[in-house]
This record gives sequence, C-alpha cells and structure tokens, in this order.
Amino acid sequence: MILTVTLNTALDLTYHVPALVPHASHRVSQVIERPGGKGLNVARVLGALGHETVVTGFAGGPTGAMLRDLLATGTAGLPGTVHDALVPTAGATRRTVAVVDAANGDTTQLNEPGPDIAPAEWAAFTTRFTGLLDGARAVALCGSLPPGIHVGAYAELVRLARAAGLPVLLDTSGEPLRRGIAARPDVIKPNAEELARLTGAREPHRATLDARRRGAHAVVTSLGPEGLLAATPDGLWQAAPPAPVRGNPTGAGDSAVAALLAGLVDGTDWPTRLTHATALSAATVLSPVAGEFDEEAYEALLPRITLTTPSPAL
Amino acid sequence: MILTVTLNTALDLTYHVPALVPHASHRVSQVIERPGGKGLNVARVLGALGHETVVTGFAGGPTGAMLRDLLATGTAGLPGTVHDALVPTAGATRRTVAVVDAANGDTTQLNEPGPDIAPAEWAAFTTRFTGLLDGARAVALCGSLPPGIHVGAYAELVRLARAAGLPVLLDTSGEPLRRGIAARPDVIKPNAEELARLTGAREPHRATLDARRRGAHAVVTSLGPEGLLAATPDGLWQAAPPAPVRGNPTGAGDSAVAALLAGLVDGTDWPTRLTHATALSAATVLSPVAGEFDEEAYEALLPRITLTTPSPAL
Repeated sequence: MILTVTLNTALDLTYHVPALVPHASHRVSQVIERPGGKGLNVARVLGALGHETVVTGFAGGPTGAMLRDLLATGTAGLPGTVHDALVPTAGATRRTVAVVDAANGDTTQLNEPGPDIAPAEWAAFTTRFTGLLDGARAVALCGSLPPGIHVGAYAELVRLARAAGLPVLLDTSGEPLRRGIAARPDVIKPNAEELARLTGAREPHRATLDARRRGAHAVVTSLGPEGLLAATPDGLWQAAPPAPVRGNPTGAGDSAVAALLAGLVDGTDWPTRLTHATALSAATVLSPVAGEFDEEAYEALLPRITLTTPSPAL
Repeated sequence: MILTVTLNTALDLTYHVPALVPHASHRVSQVIERPGGKGLNVARVLGALGHETVVTGFAGGPTGAMLRDLLATGTAGLPGTVHDALVPTAGATRRTVAVVDAANGDTTQLNEPGPDIAPAEWAAFTTRFTGLLDGARAVALCGSLPPGIHVGAYAELVRLARAAGLPVLLDTSGEPLRRGIAARPDVIKPNAEELARLTGAREPHRATLDARRRGAHAVVTSLGPEGLLAATPDGLWQAAPPAPVRGNPTGAGDSAVAALLAGLVDGTDWPTRLTHATALSAATVLSPVAGEFDEEAYEALLPRITLTTPSPAL
C-alpha cells in the first residue's frame, strides 16, 4: 500500500452560488461535502488508479467525525480503497469552503486554520506513522502544518521514512518545505510560485535546479497549464500537454502527486512518470467535479504529452 | 416560558478574514460557531433579558448534533435559559457562513438551503408544538421554511397558537408571511423591503397599514437605522433612536422581536414595547459581537428613544 500523510485534514465544503458578491447575502444552491486535505485527495486519485492507500494525520471534533464517516462510506464511488489510520486530536478538524460561481466556475476559497496539536498528540502520531511504514511501499507527506506542530515536522517524517528504506514524496511549502528538503526526500513537487519563494529564483528552470541542490533527489515543479518541469537523478525534462487546458485547477497538483507515487511503486522510468503525471493533472482540470479526473481525457492525453529536455546552459 | 419556533435552524459560522476578494484564497483568522436561525437568536436575547424560553423546530444530521451541543453547553454565557425542544429530522441542519472583513466589518453571507422535511416529520412537529403550547405564555414563529414544508405552515401554527389562547408573533417573509397574516397573528415584524414585496406599496406607512388590513392585529415594521414603525390596535407610532446607529445590523431584527415578546408577556403598553424594541435593536447594532446587545448602550438608549405619531392623512 501507499501511505499518505495529511497533518491538517479538512472537511471540504463546496458551495455553488450564481455569483459571489462581497457584502451581499447568497443562497447556496448546492452543497458538496468531502473529506479533504492534500493527502486525502491524493489517496482518492490513487484509489481510482487501482492502488490501495492508507491515510494518516489528525482528525478531531465533530468535523473530524464527519470526515471519517465520509471516508468510511466511500466517496467518489471508491469505497474500500482508502483506509483510515487517522490519529485523534482534541481540537476540531478544520473546514474549508470553496465558493464556486455558476457563471464561470471561478472559485473563492476560505480555509479555517485547523486545530492546535499538542506535543503528546504529535508523539502519538509519530509512533503511529512509524508503525504504518512497515506495510508501505511509498510515502507522501502533503499539505500545511496545523498550529502547534514544529516547523521541522516534515523533516522528521522524511528521515523516519528513509530510515525504513521507503521512497518519500514531500508536497508542502514555506519553511516546512525548506526544512524537509534538507532531510533529502526522494521527490518534492512544488509549484513555480512556492519554488520562487524557497529559492529566490523566479525563473522556474533555475529554481528547480537550485531546489535539487538543496537536497531533494528529484524536483518536479508544476508550471500550471504548461505542464511539469523535472530535475531528477536521470536527467532534466519538461512535460507538456498538447495545448494548455482550461477548467478547474483544484486538485490538479494532487493528481500529479498521485501519478508520481504510482510511478515510484511501479518502478517506471522518469519520462513515463512525468507523462502520466502531466496527463492526469490535465484530465483533472478538465473534469467537471473538482479534484476528480476525466478518465477518457486521461487516456486520450497520454499519447499526446510532449517531453523536451531544457537547455543544459541552465 | 416563551416558545420560539425555528423551522430552518442553522449552525452559524462566522469567519474573520482581512478582506474578502472574489476568486482568491483566504486564510480564516477566527472561526465562531453558534446555534442559529432567527428563533434561536430571539431565544438567546430573551435569556439575556431574564426570560425562560423553549426553542423548537427541526435539527438533524451531524450539524444538527453540533447545534444541539452548543445549545446544551450554553452560548453567550447563558446556560440554562434556553431549553431545547427541537424535533429530529433525517436530513442535516444547514450551515450559514458569515464572512466578516476585518477592515470595515462588512459581512458576506452564504446560506445553505436546509434539509428536506418529510410529511411525517412535519406531523411529528405539529404534535410537539401543540404539546409545548400548554406551558407557554407567548409564541414566536421565525424565519424561512426549509424545503418540503407547505407554504401555509405558519398559517397553520398561528391558528394552533391562537386556538390555545396564546399571543403569537410572526417574523418571516414572502408567501409564508402572506398566508400567515391571513391567519390573524397578534404581531408581525417585517422590514420595509419585505413589506413592500408583500403589499406592493413602497412607502412604509402605507405598506404597514395595508399589512394590518390583511389580518395582522399589529404590524411593527423595521426601518433599519431609523427605528420602528408600528400600526397597532392602540394607535400608530414611529420609534427612533436619538441618531441613526452604525455597526453590525446582524441580529438587530431578532432583538426587536425579543423585546416585543417580552412586552407581550409583561403586558406593557405599546409605546413601552416599541421604546424597548428600538433601544435593544440599536444596542445590538452597537455590539462588537454579531447578534448580542451592548447592555450599557441599551440602558443609555432607553430614555432617549423618541416616539412620534405619523400623520393620520396616511
């Protein structure tokens, strides 16, 4: 199985409104509730790709109970592929609210901060995490840290996973990413903006190479509609869809992470991993449901992804 | 005790953000959870005024359980004054999200539609309601109807309350208000806009008198910062604060309803009721916490409310 970690899980609410107007009152026409947080989204996509996953992290309070109920009953038609190994916390799991304008699909996001995690809860988590490594083939560490967890938390988890001989992918930002990279994860998957903040280099090729020098074995940078840029032990590649895709980008990054993890456990080469990650990411943007991917579009895009090697001058 | 009915209760969430920007992502700095829906707000204010209240209506699902927990533990420092007689429903109680801009306190409101109420659940509710009338001294029927409840529901409840010899106040809008008025409630408390929609008359004095002719014994129209306009069996009055108050108007209408109910059970005359309702409403606008009232401001405003009699030419 593949283990995904979501320290700041969320009960994701999607509200459909005709159009969001600040300081006005809105009747929400449709409400969708889903278990959320990057690692849970990655697990859902892995399930759709036929991979067994275990999700861990924290869940607490009535919102945490709702999230676990939604996981148990299966969402997106995938009961039984995502196994709940979440650790209880005294505080309540945060909500996120995505307000979608019916007219154009534009989304306004409101994210609660998440519960304070006590030191004893973090200790209970690392014990659980270490136990779960035993049955895992790869590990993904995903998303922001909730309040109370030390900023080197991901570095600590990267070291535990690598000590267990497991490949580990880190998908976070800011100082937790900076510290995590120094612990030498196998893959990081920042977007161009996160990478620019980390390295100070605004040019994505330069920033990607810089991030690799800081310790990550492979850096896969999301360029949004233009695909992925990767600096790996086997070479440099840019993978791009045949044309930039338009749609809802929510979850496109999580789909790329899922494809990269699937590639890690299947032992495919980097060009194949990048092709799948780019196609799956584009197929997620094209799906009418946020965070799901359009299977037909995925199959159709796979043979049409172009791989180029950026100039070595960089 | 005073009985308040909230058929479409809500778990009210207040999100504080620096400023709401459509199509951007926001970190919510502060989250407040409260049991909501107009009748629950009225009950909370009545509790602060020293009146025992019983709240009924529907609650269901995990959000309904959260609402009932918040009621049981007491909110706004008032445990024990609001008694829960909510009736279970299979669907989940709606959430409302109020997004407050830190800069100016402007609020953007997102309201979920509420659960579908089955005919058997409505029958269970009317039985419960009839039973509760036994110990009540006044009844308030508040807010919108959730899906599934017939549009004449409030008219039905007005008749039941009046058959039991109890004074009944109706605070709703649209067709449920139109039908409810025909059942001859003791008081309705529309705002000027709701009244214009009901009567077709945009001029508030004319619309207030028109609404009274349709069947309500007394019509108390909210004029926003300019106070209240009342057409009663004892005469016409306009009650106004010494100057229009600025602040958060959330809950000001519910405070006016609470004061009118307190006046009904205390048997005060109409000028006294209107003075209290206007002062309490203004003190709610002045409170930093939405839906609560500033007690000092309330006491200070009471002797400064002006009562005038509108021209009989209208």
